[in-house]
Amino acid sequence: MQRIGFIGLGIMGKPMARNLLKAGYPVVVHNRSRATTEELTAEGAGVAETPGAIAQQSDVVITCLPDSPDVESVVLGNEGVLAGAQSGMIYIDASTIAPTTAQKVYTALKLKGVDALDAPVSGGDIGAQQGTLSIMVGGDEAAFQRALPILQAIGKNIIHVGEAGAGQVTKACNQIVVSLTIQAVAEALTFAKKSGVDPAKVRAALLGGFAHSRILEVHGQRMLDGNFQPGFKLNLHRKDMNIVLQTGKELHLPLFGSAQITELMDALLAQGKGELDNSALITLYEMLAGVTYS
Amino acid sequence: MQRIGFIGLGIMGKPMARNLLKAGYPVVVHNRSRATTEELTAEGAGVAETPGAIAQQSDVVITCLPDSPDVESVVLGNEGVLAGAQSGMIYIDASTIAPTTAQKVYTALKLKGVDALDAPVSGGDIGAQQGTLSIMVGGDEAAFQRALPILQAIGKNIIHVGEAGAGQVTKACNQIVVSLTIQAVAEALTFAKKSGVDPAKVRAALLGGFAHSRILEVHGQRMLDGNFQPGFKLNLHRKDMNIVLQTGKELHLPLFGSAQITELMDALLAQGKGELDNSALITLYEMLAGVTYS
Repeated sequence: MQRIGFIGLGIMGKPMARNLLKAGYPVVVHNRSRATTEELTAEGAGVAETPGAIAQQSDVVITCLPDSPDVESVVLGNEGVLAGAQSGMIYIDASTIAPTTAQKVYTALKLKGVDALDAPVSGGDIGAQQGTLSIMVGGDEAAFQRALPILQAIGKNIIHVGEAGAGQVTKACNQIVVSLTIQAVAEALTFAKKSGVDPAKVRAALLGGFAHSRILEVHGQRMLDGNFQPGFKLNLHRKDMNIVLQTGKELHLPLFGSAQITELMDALLAQGKGELDNSALITLYEMLAGVTYS
Repeated sequence: MQRIGFIGLGIMGKPMARNLLKAGYPVVVHNRSRATTEELTAEGAGVAETPGAIAQQSDVVITCLPDSPDVESVVLGNEGVLAGAQSGMIYIDASTIAPTTAQKVYTALKLKGVDALDAPVSGGDIGAQQGTLSIMVGGDEAAFQRALPILQAIGKNIIHVGEAGAGQVTKACNQIVVSLTIQAVAEALTFAKKSGVDPAKVRAALLGGFAHSRILEVHGQRMLDGNFQPGFKLNLHRKDMNIVLQTGKELHLPLFGSAQITELMDALLAQGKGELDNSALITLYEMLAGVTYS
């Protein structure tokens, strides 16, 4: 079986690495803080001191890191993945980062004979634990096929969308749609509430027609319950909107809606609500409109 | 069987009146232009010269009219429904109008012993023809129960959401969600296209997760096909957003997203695209971003 190196054992990475161990892969891990690696070594993982050392002893290296600069330094930096990689290795980045960074990493690794796949995930920590993540993959078709069995150990709905960066583009599109649909639901439910109509009945009525969405179903219910346990944290969604808007600026693409919802998210962060679920957008509308749900 | 009077035989009203005839109700119709009434008299409907005359010979009067002022004048104006109505009559308004107008009409009719229901529909002309409209009803519970068999002859998903005006509030909420979800999908697909990623693959990938919506499914496909045959015309959606924003202003409710999408709709109307489907929003993004789909 292919030897897997896993870098970044956060809320998403740790359960992903664990699922690879469960699937029988030999896994070597690396993380900035040591405590998490000890948890996984107890379950059979090896540890390496640097990303470069991970790459030296792996056929496939997976990273799951917070943001673009983290990926850039772990791959291209001193004692990074690139430095330790041998030709024929596959690099899979499960982080959500800028498409341009994914392309830059792809090109740098390609020169050394390493295939890179950008493979951002969605489905949250529960999806990571259950191995049911959606994975949107960019990169070469042949590399995708080689990596597929490994991806199937951590996710379920796995789609190869296009060349290097296409996975990140798709994830950005996902974050646009999710954020704007949350806004749609928040405005509608606040409109109902402020008009004196039961928002729960409005949600139920709307689910039967063209207004139907998973966001109306799931996040709409969270809004009605005032239950903002994440789910997906506003902090992280806000970070992803940075990628959306930065990429939009590079493309000279006017993203009216995405820009506006990011402003509203900033208001929520300013109020210290970054650790709440992204459905907590409704609290901003509540506050502004002087209504409450819960 | 209850005698039904039907006023307003437009693209929605005519098939609704026809379905009532088919269900065996005696129907008397009235329309500003005569041609349409002749079509229905050939199918067994009677005709009356004024809304008041309709009311005089009906147990239930239904209107399906373009906008709030039309309803107000047909019901409260000279020779209107109110003038001709007897105590015990039911008035059902299937138009999409301002909640406040619905409440005003309800109160005026109540004084004469007439029960009013605001019952805006969604599902388009095809839903009207097939008798599968969604109907969001506001008004007294007892009146709703009495009207239900009649509503079941024209629609399928029939929900009593609350007191007078609640049907219109729900319809407004529906139009908020639909418009903002269309914007969400348009921004995401344009983002994909401009990034060089196949928007059809992005749509398919997003349908598997939290970004799932009927709009992504149906209107997303229309955008990819460049097929803007209505569906639901931008002109009409824009009119409904007027109701949303006007009501928002009366309630001092800040509707950032709804206000913005209405501006974008105005740009489309300025370009003479009011007769296209509301999914034609994508053409504005295409134009601004310099990309094309079809």
